[in-house]
Amino acid sequence: MGLDDDILDVLRENGGTHISGEELCKTAGVSRAAIWKHIEKLRDEGYDIEASPHLGYRLIGIPDSLIPGEIKWKLKTAIVGRKILSYRKVDSTNTIAYGLAEKGLEEGAVIIADEQTGGRGRQGRVWNSPPGSGIYMSIILRPGMAPNEIPKITLVAAVAVAKAVRQFTGLPAIIKWPNDILVNRRKVCGILTEMKAEQDRIGFIVLGIGVNVNTRHKDLPKTASSLKEELRRHGGDNDLSRVELVKKILEAVDRHYNLLKKKGSGPIIEEWKELSAMLGARIRVALPNRSFEAQAHDIDQDGSLVVRLDSGMLQKVAAGDVEMIR
Amino acid sequence: MGLDDDILDVLRENGGTHISGEELCKTAGVSRAAIWKHIEKLRDEGYDIEASPHLGYRLIGIPDSLIPGEIKWKLKTAIVGRKILSYRKVDSTNTIAYGLAEKGLEEGAVIIADEQTGGRGRQGRVWNSPPGSGIYMSIILRPGMAPNEIPKITLVAAVAVAKAVRQFTGLPAIIKWPNDILVNRRKVCGILTEMKAEQDRIGFIVLGIGVNVNTRHKDLPKTASSLKEELRRHGGDNDLSRVELVKKILEAVDRHYNLLKKKGSGPIIEEWKELSAMLGARIRVALPNRSFEAQAHDIDQDGSLVVRLDSGMLQKVAAGDVEMIR
Repeated sequence: MGLDDDILDVLRENGGTHISGEELCKTAGVSRAAIWKHIEKLRDEGYDIEASPHLGYRLIGIPDSLIPGEIKWKLKTAIVGRKILSYRKVDSTNTIAYGLAEKGLEEGAVIIADEQTGGRGRQGRVWNSPPGSGIYMSIILRPGMAPNEIPKITLVAAVAVAKAVRQFTGLPAIIKWPNDILVNRRKVCGILTEMKAEQDRIGFIVLGIGVNVNTRHKDLPKTASSLKEELRRHGGDNDLSRVELVKKILEAVDRHYNLLKKKGSGPIIEEWKELSAMLGARIRVALPNRSFEAQAHDIDQDGSLVVRLDSGMLQKVAAGDVEMIR
Repeated sequence: MGLDDDILDVLRENGGTHISGEELCKTAGVSRAAIWKHIEKLRDEGYDIEASPHLGYRLIGIPDSLIPGEIKWKLKTAIVGRKILSYRKVDSTNTIAYGLAEKGLEEGAVIIADEQTGGRGRQGRVWNSPPGSGIYMSIILRPGMAPNEIPKITLVAAVAVAKAVRQFTGLPAIIKWPNDILVNRRKVCGILTEMKAEQDRIGFIVLGIGVNVNTRHKDLPKTASSLKEELRRHGGDNDLSRVELVKKILEAVDRHYNLLKKKGSGPIIEEWKELSAMLGARIRVALPNRSFEAQAHDIDQDGSLVVRLDSGMLQKVAAGDVEMIR
């Protein structure tokens, strides 16, 4: 924490009221000239700070920039977000996080960027990441599990993000197995879980989360949407705060990750089922070499989808894509 | 293939007989002076080449150096060893291979070194890798499987190495679950399987194989031995050719890997069972947080060990260590 953060904290703590330059000097332990220099720097970063000769300083507006100081402010987590690295533009936050995790970056560290030039989805697909309108972040986890337990982490992420989106926007976000979040049948969020592992031990997991927040339809593929576009159908037209949503997501991931470690996957799977509109529905399952129709029946303790074939037989689907049939 | 390789190939094809300088010039398409320069270079690499003014050149001895040209010579594989990178001394061949695989190095590529300064075993353990006496190599595989299938690759490696060692030395090598090869209850080979994966797709696997070939007891931990030390009990005292054994191992891995891809894990598991002295034996199972005794009962299609508890119940062991109880 530098002096900028200290000054910012004092301004924040004071809410919308003024604090005198003198008091600010005392708290920060520097001269008036130094205070002024730091205020100017904060303004450059997008903070709207009123300076009145008689009343002092007052924080009016906070930028919706994904900077560590803003995300960490009153963040209620035990592990996730202990360290946050913020970038303006990267190839892919998952790639950056993977490289840093290999060098030992700690569990809970978050890599976040304003723009991705090579955003990735599952199976080498592209994740559109236009600048300034979405959340593109990766969380490093070191769960000490076996590699075949990785789907549990994807379940944790899907439940956490769906709940955070519901809580923050009121939109009826649902989970589509294994790792998409839909609103009105359109994809608003994707999750990409990658790991380095030995045969029986995960070294680390990089949990990538992409959310289309204020992204416009024209910047997205046809099957996708953004939270703002979906709220517009309900009459909303303001930009959503990405910083606030990031905090909600990090808090939800932290809570559910710790729940998984304490109680196993049972409670997470129950929540997953409640948030999934898929179970019971007719679906098309696409495997690498064939596709077939079936009924989505259940999700098992490993995170695999269990489908009922037309013959009545149950079959486990561990990998692949599914589409609900209207 | 450079000119050195061409000249070497001609000398090899001629077996133990002489080939005239003139003929060698014709075949290689260079001058006598150039031939001489290359012969000198090959001698520097350890090749014993006789040069007689009247008869010409004759290959007498081949160095036991783990150089690509020697390993590739008449190597009968479809995938494994298509590319071989040889190092004198590395931190760990698995680390090198992992880094190169991330940059796209092809399936079947082999990284081999004469010495490792940071050789690794499972779960962060050390693998002793003194110079010049062992085989330390890593094979890059891209099997297009799900991450929970990685134990199948370890089974493939264990079966392949055990068979190659038996064939090459006649020693009764057996497999200890999940990934050790023992001779006379002492460890002569270890396998370390690492991967990069998404939730439902392996990106690549690095299959690390370490074999104590001519290593002396004093350079090894107490529970370990080398092929030469075990042969000594039977009266043998010559150094074994590491190059020949590497070729046998690569060929066996290639054969069993292709078998796995064509027929699934069934046939591999049958071979595994025949090569394992463990099934039926009383064992101690050490999990991260507890240990217990049981009877080794079976190995299932996923590569997990199935044990029979004293209560009669069967339990699956996916990770952990086991010791046979005498």
